Amino acid sequence: MGDNTIYRASTTAPVNIAVIKYWGKRDAKLNLPTNSSLSVTLSQDDLRTHTTASCSSTFSGPDTLLLNGSPQDVSGARTQACFKALRGLRAELETANPSLPKLSTYPLRIVSSNNFPTAAGLASSASGFAALVRAIANLYELHSSPTALSQIARQGSGSACRSLFGGYVAWDQGSAADGSDSLAREVAPASHWPEMRALVLVVSAAKKGVSSTTGMQTTVATSALFRARAEDVVPKRMAEMERAIAERDFDAFARLTMRDSNNFHAVCLDTEPPIFYLNDVSRAAIRLVECINAAAGKAVAAYTFDAGPNAVIYFLEQNAGLVAGTFKTFLGHLDGWQTELGNKLAGQAGVAADALEQKSVDVVKDGVSRVILTSVGQGPVKTDESLIDEKGEPVV
Amino acid sequence: MGDNTIYRASTTAPVNIAVIKYWGKRDAKLNLPTNSSLSVTLSQDDLRTHTTASCSSTFSGPDTLLLNGSPQDVSGARTQACFKALRGLRAELETANPSLPKLSTYPLRIVSSNNFPTAAGLASSASGFAALVRAIANLYELHSSPTALSQIARQGSGSACRSLFGGYVAWDQGSAADGSDSLAREVAPASHWPEMRALVLVVSAAKKGVSSTTGMQTTVATSALFRARAEDVVPKRMAEMERAIAERDFDAFARLTMRDSNNFHAVCLDTEPPIFYLNDVSRAAIRLVECINAAAGKAVAAYTFDAGPNAVIYFLEQNAGLVAGTFKTFLGHLDGWQTELGNKLAGQAGVAADALEQKSVDVVKDGVSRVILTSVGQGPVKTDESLIDEKGEPVV
Repeated sequence: MGDNTIYRASTTAPVNIAVIKYWGKRDAKLNLPTNSSLSVTLSQDDLRTHTTASCSSTFSGPDTLLLNGSPQDVSGARTQACFKALRGLRAELETANPSLPKLSTYPLRIVSSNNFPTAAGLASSASGFAALVRAIANLYELHSSPTALSQIARQGSGSACRSLFGGYVAWDQGSAADGSDSLAREVAPASHWPEMRALVLVVSAAKKGVSSTTGMQTTVATSALFRARAEDVVPKRMAEMERAIAERDFDAFARLTMRDSNNFHAVCLDTEPPIFYLNDVSRAAIRLVECINAAAGKAVAAYTFDAGPNAVIYFLEQNAGLVAGTFKTFLGHLDGWQTELGNKLAGQAGVAADALEQKSVDVVKDGVSRVILTSVGQGPVKTDESLIDEKGEPVV
Repeated sequence: MGDNTIYRASTTAPVNIAVIKYWGKRDAKLNLPTNSSLSVTLSQDDLRTHTTASCSSTFSGPDTLLLNGSPQDVSGARTQACFKALRGLRAELETANPSLPKLSTYPLRIVSSNNFPTAAGLASSASGFAALVRAIANLYELHSSPTALSQIARQGSGSACRSLFGGYVAWDQGSAADGSDSLAREVAPASHWPEMRALVLVVSAAKKGVSSTTGMQTTVATSALFRARAEDVVPKRMAEMERAIAERDFDAFARLTMRDSNNFHAVCLDTEPPIFYLNDVSRAAIRLVECINAAAGKAVAAYTFDAGPNAVIYFLEQNAGLVAGTFKTFLGHLDGWQTELGNKLAGQAGVAADALEQKSVDVVKDGVSRVILTSVGQGPVKTDESLIDEKGEPVV
């Protein structure tokens, strides 16, 4: 008499965008970084991965993962490392309590979907692995804390560890060879500084550049400036950024964010061969943020760029008009403004048009294909909305 | 009974393009650098400033300088420093030998012209100040060595000190507070490695970016990576580059040149606010050089970029087809190929067209307005061709 139950659990998990960047691994297998990093978790209303994990003794064959309707290869070392760690934790529970069903021995079926277009060029591996790990942990009814789970998600994708928390999140690099102290930690919940907003400028036709995994290892191996970044620059900035967040000091937050984005792209440029993620559209967006800050007389906007040309611009709700409103004056025709946050911009004046460098306006207008207007948000949320039905089949 | 003679002397002086870049001053008044640098002097057949200096007791009014037909302001501290130093050296001669005419007391009239369009966006201050100093030194019949004159030219424009020599030239940063040991020195004459060629890709509509004087001081003040460049990276590279030149090791020369260009632009990007000189056209040119080197199976071309988007690509005569020939296949319609060096390319095959990234070819083709094909060349050359006539008037 076997157990024919289809066990299911679902979660959503957020995207995060770092303000102190992760770039460089000291252990490529375990995804252990050469420096700590810090990010803001973005609202799942706008950007999230929704994942249902299921298992059953009735499932046959290997573990599977369906993402946005397409089967994914789960045989890679990273996904396998996550499965193995989670099954290990489940097996410990099963050993301690033999009455528990032996879920750790059942094949996994996982279905996942993103609420944002892959074409947006936003790194979905962070929300993807965070949701995967959180969903299986829910399925297995693990007692592990988000920090403990972050150690597992980190092995799937480094920055995924930060998506296990909402708000403002640090990933402490740690020093242990086994990665046991390379963990994510909440610096402050979203409620500590809920006014934080982000405008993402999605740059059109962004050809995929060098993958971040390859790129960061080439930087570590060849950049003459990398050590200064990892050993001197970032440790100081981590402390300064934590203080800026604790004190809700947007000026310091903005300056550190922009400096660290530029510092990260500088070591990319110092790589052999050089790695370029910023293009002329990115640079024009930087100029416009500089124009807006100059017009405002203080830092009201902070740009940051991951391993691609898309600009993420942080600002506070109180300056939504000055920042997002200014960009809307010439990007208002694009998708992405028709949201609650976008609608609030109506009637809020941007900076004077003549405060903006016209050439940069033209380049950004030509080169940006859509915007995403969002805010700081929560960590993973358990949901009853299942992407797998009672029979174990994907919900179409 | 005055001396009514119109004294005249003329020289030409070359442009130089650094392969280890000068970026940062430790003394802005004296133009003392934070690191040593090294350059290749380019042929004056293609790029030179021609300057005639004259003086006479019959001249009235202040010193004047006419450049390409336009009066220039000579009241700036830099030009004045050059005039003062040169007059001082002349006065010493006059004191030692009272029979000499008192040229040091006469007003100077200087006429100068460049054989390349200002619109080319090539820094003409190096050849300009080198020619100015050399012409006045000739006029004054100074016995000063080129190295001694380099100390004077340096005060006009830092990189001008390197244009007092041909071939391969180092500017040793020195350590004396008065700049007396911050001098240019010949690493090797052009004849040591005469096969060195350079292809300049002049990028259209290159809007003038941040001036290098302002830019480098902002970098020194704000870049977190700058010290590593000035104190660790460049000193090692100077030694390696001198060795590469001594041994005519193009592979090492090329790698160091490209790495140092990228390292320099990396600290520009790490500046607050960031300084961008490379644009999408520059980046596409980098990609094409990478494609050419990959197709050749070794480094046959080396790109470098000064404070602007123009690419300077060094290569050896024996690889002219592979490098310049390849660029000519899609830039052949532009001005600049109809020269002796350009004509030699006929019949020399470039790399296979499918070895080039097509997108980068398109971007370079759209963005480059002319080319300059040149080679390593000589230092300043005295000439009888005077830009000032016997009456002291500019030759039109």
